[in-house]
Amino acid sequence: MAKINSNYRKLPKSYLFSEIAKRTEAFLEKNPKVEILKLGIGNTTEPLAPSVIDGLINGVKKLAKLDSYTGYGDEQGDSRLRQALSDWYKHSLPAGAGKKRGINLLADEIFISDGAKPDAANISSIFSPDSVVAITDPVYPVYLDSNVIAGKKIVYLSADEKNGFIPTLPKQKVDLIFLCFPNNPTGAVATKKQLKEFVDYATGNRAVIIFDAAYSEYIKDKNLPTSIYEIKGAKSCAIELQSFSKSAGFTGVRLGWTVVPKDLIVEGSQPGEINQFWHRRQTTMFNGASNIAQEGGLAILSAEGQKQTRKQVNYYMENAAIIKRGLKDMGLTVFGGENAPYLWVKCPEGLSSWEFFDKLLKKAHVVGTPGSGFGQMGEGYLRLSAFGHRENVRKAMISIKENLNL
Amino acid sequence: MAKINSNYRKLPKSYLFSEIAKRTEAFLEKNPKVEILKLGIGNTTEPLAPSVIDGLINGVKKLAKLDSYTGYGDEQGDSRLRQALSDWYKHSLPAGAGKKRGINLLADEIFISDGAKPDAANISSIFSPDSVVAITDPVYPVYLDSNVIAGKKIVYLSADEKNGFIPTLPKQKVDLIFLCFPNNPTGAVATKKQLKEFVDYATGNRAVIIFDAAYSEYIKDKNLPTSIYEIKGAKSCAIELQSFSKSAGFTGVRLGWTVVPKDLIVEGSQPGEINQFWHRRQTTMFNGASNIAQEGGLAILSAEGQKQTRKQVNYYMENAAIIKRGLKDMGLTVFGGENAPYLWVKCPEGLSSWEFFDKLLKKAHVVGTPGSGFGQMGEGYLRLSAFGHRENVRKAMISIKENLNL
Repeated sequence: MAKINSNYRKLPKSYLFSEIAKRTEAFLEKNPKVEILKLGIGNTTEPLAPSVIDGLINGVKKLAKLDSYTGYGDEQGDSRLRQALSDWYKHSLPAGAGKKRGINLLADEIFISDGAKPDAANISSIFSPDSVVAITDPVYPVYLDSNVIAGKKIVYLSADEKNGFIPTLPKQKVDLIFLCFPNNPTGAVATKKQLKEFVDYATGNRAVIIFDAAYSEYIKDKNLPTSIYEIKGAKSCAIELQSFSKSAGFTGVRLGWTVVPKDLIVEGSQPGEINQFWHRRQTTMFNGASNIAQEGGLAILSAEGQKQTRKQVNYYMENAAIIKRGLKDMGLTVFGGENAPYLWVKCPEGLSSWEFFDKLLKKAHVVGTPGSGFGQMGEGYLRLSAFGHRENVRKAMISIKENLNL
Repeated sequence: MAKINSNYRKLPKSYLFSEIAKRTEAFLEKNPKVEILKLGIGNTTEPLAPSVIDGLINGVKKLAKLDSYTGYGDEQGDSRLRQALSDWYKHSLPAGAGKKRGINLLADEIFISDGAKPDAANISSIFSPDSVVAITDPVYPVYLDSNVIAGKKIVYLSADEKNGFIPTLPKQKVDLIFLCFPNNPTGAVATKKQLKEFVDYATGNRAVIIFDAAYSEYIKDKNLPTSIYEIKGAKSCAIELQSFSKSAGFTGVRLGWTVVPKDLIVEGSQPGEINQFWHRRQTTMFNGASNIAQEGGLAILSAEGQKQTRKQVNYYMENAAIIKRGLKDMGLTVFGGENAPYLWVKCPEGLSSWEFFDKLLKKAHVVGTPGSGFGQMGEGYLRLSAFGHRENVRKAMISIKENLNL
């Protein structure tokens, strides 16, 4: 007699963003003429850069001819793309910095995926089912939910105003630590010194850091690290997740990558073995990102692609500045939005996260994301996303100002 | 102290097709001028149909404009595509049949994925970790390896010449049963009567059948079922996996779907709950198939797309006929290849699977897949794939005839 995996019953019934979509739809059904202004889910809105479109078109056209058609691709992803990413880590200039990233990674340490979310959800599976997993609170729900589904033990690391939304080190021994900087949802970014403390903890306790760097291209402050591998010692204790979703508008096209260094070692593992396990996991349970998307990825990493996609990042960051300034002018307390596309807004008038969400939706027709959806410590906050078309962002700010009576 | 998931150590070190690729590369390194003829991995070789190319180009172009750009898509996949698949199950004509499929499935019962392989590997996770899983021997390695990684108990159902490669029912109680028809690797196809026995077993024991129908479009015999849902009672005990990989050349583009009927029930579950669990799994741990690929899927399901892609299926099936006739003329015993793109060849001269693989590679420069790679019962067989360009298939047959001295 088949039974369900009862861990699913431990989850909130809906994935956070499904719940938001449902409430928004319900409101729209009753108020069909209302224009909803979405600053909720971190969903890109701007057309892809011209050189990226060319890359994708080229990818499709290759499939139309016998001599350029490809079926299953290289096992870890297109070897040209992995090499281009290896070069990107070494030679490219982060947005805010005057010097190159200077990170040395082999193409064999890079695994192309269909985005950071699936990899974030699946990476724990190569570690022992008994692993104790440290997760920040508030947190991007995927790290938490996927580990609950897997039945793993969870330890929470609080991130709040007192610690500037940089979680404190675990007080007990943990095996895996999920970190995300620039942070979703708070928009906070850890300094090198702060990350070094985590790397030292992981090294000392032989723990593994899963570092989600999906928003790295939003960092403008040249002193902030864009990759965990800027920290000495990280290669032997950290896996990095990355994505083209937010840096190039690939939320729907689907393309990302995960770095599993060959130096990474855990209790009882051989050098290179963790890298091999992830290789085994991906070749067995995944079949590669779309070959068309990978051609697009190559175009993103070209000189012209980097120039054009950076423009888009700047566009969204100008949105962030407009939102931050607007809300502050209304007297609200706002964090983030300076090196990250997310703004973490303190709910006014003692409202709870969902109360503020509902008020914003019903009075100003603006959709945010309730902070409590990201964890207990998110209660009393609301996340606003800077991903949106400028006109809508402006409208949203005017609507909040006119209709919310703050 | 982090530890690895030691279940990974129970797996063969390489995924089967990685091992084949390695041996082929090693041979090519020593013999760089040799032309290798690949009939190993089931990898499509023919360019995409013109109408599908148009659909994909359209998908890319939509991303170039503000009013048609899309980021994250509908949760279970593009609702137009799910509706088109619902219509396809009801109204389309299978290749060999004079009447419509006539299967009623709601769009909400269909989940778009990036292919059948990831879904086959992930589907068990919504069931109890204690589930006993029945797997045929020989078997497509993904069902086995993914359940070994998850630490599930495996029961083998033998498929051999005696039972015409249709596995016999489990002798003990099992919870999940993985079936694949048309079968990879043997090319056998179960009749309605044979599938009915599995559905009755599952109904009686409240087990769940995971039915992989990825090769359904290769069925020419109008009496053979192309979907488990042609069998009465299947909707309350079966999940179906499907893919555009082999029916439309999407091995590299990546697009498939999984059907989880709302009627599906297991011990202690509510009606619709399994469907909801898969919805929760996919919204939490997956972020949708590429929007470009989904536009391609819509083009595949158009009248013109169906006509053009069917031509490709016929092309590969002509390859199968050429291979089958050729090998039989050489005195070999060959199964499959009539309603499936795979041929299951008995190794001559008492050779083991890998011995025959090596002989074929070194003498005839033809790459097959050793039957033993699919399980113990596959020992003494070799799988040949009909996916190949005609010229190469012909060359392969000539080379086998001239160089193998059978």
